[in-house]
Amino acid sequence: MKLDPVTTNPESYKVVFENDRVRVLEYKDKPGHLTTPHEHPNSVMYTLTTFSRRLHANGTTRDVEIVAGTTSWLPAQMHAGENIGQTDTHVIFVELKDDSEPTGSIGPQI
Amino acid sequence: MKLDPVTTNPESYKVVFENDRVRVLEYKDKPGHLTTPHEHPNSVMYTLTTFSRRLHANGTTRDVEIVAGTTSWLPAQMHAGENIGQTDTHVIFVELKDDSEPTGSIGPQI
Repeated sequence: MKLDPVTTNPESYKVVFENDRVRVLEYKDKPGHLTTPHEHPNSVMYTLTTFSRRLHANGTTRDVEIVAGTTSWLPAQMHAGENIGQTDTHVIFVELKDDSEPTGSIGPQI
Repeated sequence: MKLDPVTTNPESYKVVFENDRVRVLEYKDKPGHLTTPHEHPNSVMYTLTTFSRRLHANGTTRDVEIVAGTTSWLPAQMHAGENIGQTDTHVIFVELKDDSEPTGSIGPQI
Protein backbone atom coordinates (compact mmCIF):
# COMPACT_ATOMS: atom_id res chain seq x y z
CA MET A 1 0.00 0.00 0.00
CA LYS A 2 1.81 3.10 -1.24
CA LEU A 3 -0.50 5.74 0.21
CA ASP A 4 -0.96 4.47 3.76
CA PRO A 5 -3.42 6.84 5.47
CA VAL A 6 -1.42 6.69 8.70
CA THR A 7 1.45 8.26 6.74
CA THR A 8 -0.52 10.55 4.42
CA ASN A 9 -2.96 11.82 7.06
CA PRO A 10 -1.49 11.30 10.52
CA GLU A 11 -3.68 14.11 11.88
CA SER A 12 -6.71 11.86 11.41
CA TYR A 13 -5.61 8.21 11.28
CA LYS A 14 -4.11 6.38 14.25
CA VAL A 15 -3.16 2.69 14.55
CA VAL A 16 -4.93 1.33 17.64
CA PHE A 17 -4.11 -2.39 17.15
CA GLU A 18 -2.05 -4.56 14.81
CA ASN A 19 -1.07 -8.21 14.44
CA ASP A 20 -0.30 -10.50 11.50
CA ARG A 21 -3.96 -10.74 10.44
CA VAL A 22 -5.40 -7.26 10.88
CA ARG A 23 -4.57 -3.63 11.51
CA VAL A 24 -7.15 -1.45 13.24
CA LEU A 25 -7.29 2.30 12.61
CA GLU A 26 -9.19 5.01 14.45
CA TYR A 27 -10.21 7.96 12.28
CA LYS A 28 -11.29 11.37 13.60
CA ASP A 29 -11.95 14.68 11.91
CA LYS A 30 -13.92 17.91 12.20
CA PRO A 31 -16.39 19.52 9.76
CA GLY A 32 -14.60 20.95 6.72
CA HIS A 33 -11.62 18.58 6.97
CA LEU A 34 -10.32 17.10 3.69
CA THR A 35 -7.81 14.24 3.54
CA THR A 36 -5.25 13.77 0.81
CA PRO A 37 -5.65 10.70 -1.45
CA HIS A 38 -4.89 7.47 0.40
CA GLU A 39 -5.48 3.72 0.12
CA HIS A 40 -7.55 1.29 2.14
CA PRO A 41 -7.31 -2.50 1.92
CA ASN A 42 -10.53 -4.52 2.36
CA SER A 43 -11.85 -3.24 5.67
CA VAL A 44 -14.78 -3.37 8.05
CA MET A 45 -15.96 0.13 9.00
CA TYR A 46 -17.77 0.81 12.25
CA THR A 47 -19.06 4.36 12.69
CA LEU A 48 -19.14 5.94 16.15
CA THR A 49 -20.74 9.21 15.01
CA THR A 50 -23.33 10.24 12.41
CA PHE A 51 -21.64 12.22 9.62
CA SER A 52 -21.86 13.43 6.01
CA ARG A 53 -18.90 12.82 3.75
CA ARG A 54 -17.83 13.44 0.16
CA LEU A 55 -15.53 10.80 -1.26
CA HIS A 56 -13.28 11.79 -4.15
CA ALA A 57 -11.96 8.99 -6.39
CA ASN A 58 -11.47 8.09 -10.04
CA GLY A 59 -12.15 11.68 -11.10
CA THR A 60 -15.61 11.70 -9.57
CA THR A 61 -17.28 12.07 -6.17
CA ARG A 62 -19.80 10.21 -4.05
CA ASP A 63 -21.63 11.73 -1.09
CA VAL A 64 -22.59 9.47 1.80
CA GLU A 65 -24.40 10.04 5.07
CA ILE A 66 -23.77 7.35 7.66
CA VAL A 67 -25.43 7.06 11.04
CA ALA A 68 -23.64 6.17 14.28
CA GLY A 69 -23.49 2.44 14.95
CA THR A 70 -23.36 1.37 11.30
CA THR A 71 -21.20 -1.59 10.27
CA SER A 72 -20.22 -1.68 6.60
CA TRP A 73 -17.68 -3.14 4.20
CA LEU A 74 -15.11 -0.88 2.54
CA PRO A 75 -13.72 -2.67 -0.52
CA ALA A 76 -10.02 -1.98 -1.20
CA GLN A 77 -9.73 1.44 -2.83
CA MET A 78 -7.95 4.76 -3.11
CA HIS A 79 -9.87 7.93 -2.30
CA ALA A 80 -9.82 11.25 -0.50
CA GLY A 81 -12.51 12.05 2.08
CA GLU A 82 -14.14 15.35 2.95
CA ASN A 83 -16.30 16.09 5.96
CA ILE A 84 -19.18 18.03 4.37
CA GLY A 85 -21.49 17.94 7.39
CA GLN A 86 -21.81 19.69 10.73
CA THR A 87 -20.59 16.80 12.90
CA ASP A 88 -17.27 15.21 13.75
CA THR A 89 -16.37 11.96 12.00
CA HIS A 90 -15.28 9.08 14.25
CA VAL A 91 -14.77 5.68 12.63
CA ILE A 92 -13.02 2.40 13.42
CA PHE A 93 -11.50 0.57 10.42
CA VAL A 94 -10.57 -3.11 10.77
CA GLU A 95 -8.17 -3.63 7.86
CA LEU A 96 -7.69 -7.21 6.60
CA LYS A 97 -4.15 -8.20 5.69
CA ASP A 98 -5.25 -10.14 2.63
CA ASP A 99 -3.27 -8.38 -0.14
CA SER A 100 -6.53 -7.28 -1.71
CA GLU A 101 -6.21 -5.41 -5.01
CA PRO A 102 -7.78 -1.95 -5.23
CA THR A 103 -11.28 -2.01 -6.69
CA GLY A 104 -13.07 0.73 -8.60
CA SER A 105 -15.42 1.24 -5.67
CA ILE A 106 -15.90 4.61 -4.01
CA GLY A 107 -16.71 4.47 -0.32
CA PRO A 108 -18.41 1.81 1.76
CA GLN A 109 -21.01 -0.65 0.53
CA ILE A 110 -24.03 1.07 2.00
CA MET B 1 -18.17 -23.77 14.69
CA LYS B 2 -20.52 -25.99 16.67
CA LEU B 3 -21.50 -23.54 19.39
CA ASP B 4 -22.23 -20.42 17.36
CA PRO B 5 -23.09 -17.67 19.87
CA VAL B 6 -25.82 -16.36 17.58
CA THR B 7 -27.53 -19.72 18.06
CA THR B 8 -26.60 -20.44 21.68
CA ASN B 9 -27.25 -16.90 22.98
CA PRO B 10 -29.56 -15.07 20.58
CA GLU B 11 -30.68 -12.76 23.40
CA SER B 12 -27.23 -11.17 23.35
CA TYR B 13 -25.56 -11.81 19.98
CA LYS B 14 -26.84 -10.32 16.72
CA VAL B 15 -25.27 -10.52 13.24
CA VAL B 16 -24.94 -6.94 11.95
CA PHE B 17 -22.87 -7.67 8.82
CA GLU B 18 -21.59 -10.69 6.90
CA ASN B 19 -19.73 -11.42 3.66
CA ASP B 20 -17.29 -14.12 2.52
CA ARG B 21 -14.41 -12.67 4.57
CA VAL B 22 -15.93 -11.59 7.87
CA ARG B 23 -18.98 -11.76 10.07
CA VAL B 24 -19.65 -8.91 12.48
CA LEU B 25 -21.57 -9.47 15.72
CA GLU B 26 -23.04 -6.97 18.14
CA TYR B 27 -23.16 -8.18 21.75
CA LYS B 28 -25.28 -6.60 24.49
CA ASP B 29 -26.07 -7.67 28.04
CA LYS B 30 -27.04 -6.35 31.47
CA PRO B 31 -25.33 -6.80 34.85
CA GLY B 32 -25.73 -10.36 36.14
CA HIS B 33 -26.20 -11.91 32.70
CA LEU B 34 -24.39 -15.22 32.05
CA THR B 35 -24.05 -16.77 28.59
CA THR B 36 -23.92 -20.48 27.89
CA PRO B 37 -20.64 -21.88 26.50
CA HIS B 38 -20.02 -20.76 22.91
CA GLU B 39 -17.23 -20.46 20.38
CA HIS B 40 -15.49 -17.49 18.80
CA PRO B 41 -13.18 -17.65 15.77
CA ASN B 42 -10.22 -15.23 15.66
CA SER B 43 -11.90 -11.87 16.16
CA VAL B 44 -11.25 -8.19 16.69
CA MET B 45 -13.20 -6.86 19.70
CA TYR B 46 -14.18 -3.20 19.98
CA THR B 47 -15.80 -2.21 23.27
CA LEU B 48 -18.49 0.47 23.31
CA THR B 49 -18.98 0.44 27.09
CA THR B 50 -16.75 -0.05 30.14
CA PHE B 51 -17.57 -3.36 31.83
CA SER B 52 -16.36 -6.11 34.18
CA ARG B 53 -16.61 -9.68 33.00
CA ARG B 54 -15.83 -13.19 34.23
CA LEU B 55 -14.86 -15.63 31.49
CA HIS B 56 -15.35 -19.33 32.18
CA ALA B 57 -13.28 -21.79 30.12
CA ASN B 58 -11.17 -24.91 30.46
CA GLY B 59 -12.46 -25.46 33.99
CA THR B 60 -11.17 -22.13 35.22
CA THR B 61 -12.10 -18.44 35.14
CA ARG B 62 -10.50 -15.14 34.20
CA ASP B 63 -11.85 -11.75 35.25
CA VAL B 64 -11.35 -8.79 32.96
CA GLU B 65 -12.27 -5.13 33.13
CA ILE B 66 -12.29 -3.37 29.79
CA VAL B 67 -12.82 0.32 29.19
CA ALA B 68 -14.99 1.79 26.44
CA GLY B 69 -13.11 2.37 23.19
CA THR B 70 -10.67 -0.53 23.60
CA THR B 71 -9.64 -2.55 20.54
CA SER B 72 -8.29 -6.03 21.29
CA TRP B 73 -7.69 -9.43 19.72
CA LEU B 74 -9.80 -12.41 20.79
CA PRO B 75 -7.99 -15.60 19.76
CA ALA B 76 -10.29 -18.45 18.67
CA GLN B 77 -11.75 -20.04 21.79
CA MET B 78 -14.75 -21.50 23.58
CA HIS B 79 -15.95 -19.82 26.76
CA ALA B 80 -18.95 -18.58 28.71
CA GLY B 81 -19.13 -14.93 29.76
CA GLU B 82 -20.64 -13.37 32.88
CA ASN B 83 -21.32 -9.69 33.47
CA ILE B 84 -19.98 -9.25 37.03
CA GLY B 85 -20.07 -5.45 37.04
CA GLN B 86 -22.65 -2.71 37.39
CA THR B 87 -22.69 -1.63 33.73
CA ASP B 88 -24.14 -2.95 30.49
CA THR B 89 -21.78 -4.74 28.11
CA HIS B 90 -21.79 -3.54 24.50
CA VAL B 91 -19.18 -4.97 22.16
CA ILE B 92 -18.61 -5.30 18.41
CA PHE B 93 -16.87 -8.52 17.27
CA VAL B 94 -15.33 -8.67 13.79
CA GLU B 95 -14.97 -12.41 13.20
CA LEU B 96 -12.41 -13.54 10.60
CA LYS B 97 -13.47 -16.41 8.36
CA ASP B 98 -10.07 -18.07 8.48
CA ASP B 99 -10.95 -21.51 9.87
CA SER B 100 -8.87 -20.79 12.93
CA GLU B 101 -8.55 -23.65 15.41
CA PRO B 102 -9.63 -23.00 19.01
CA THR B 103 -6.74 -21.97 21.24
CA GLY B 104 -6.38 -22.49 24.97
CA SER B 105 -6.79 -18.75 25.53
CA ILE B 106 -9.42 -17.29 27.82
CA GLY B 107 -10.69 -13.90 26.79
CA PRO B 108 -9.09 -11.09 24.84
CA GLN B 109 -5.39 -10.35 24.67
CA ILE B 110 -5.38 -7.40 27.01
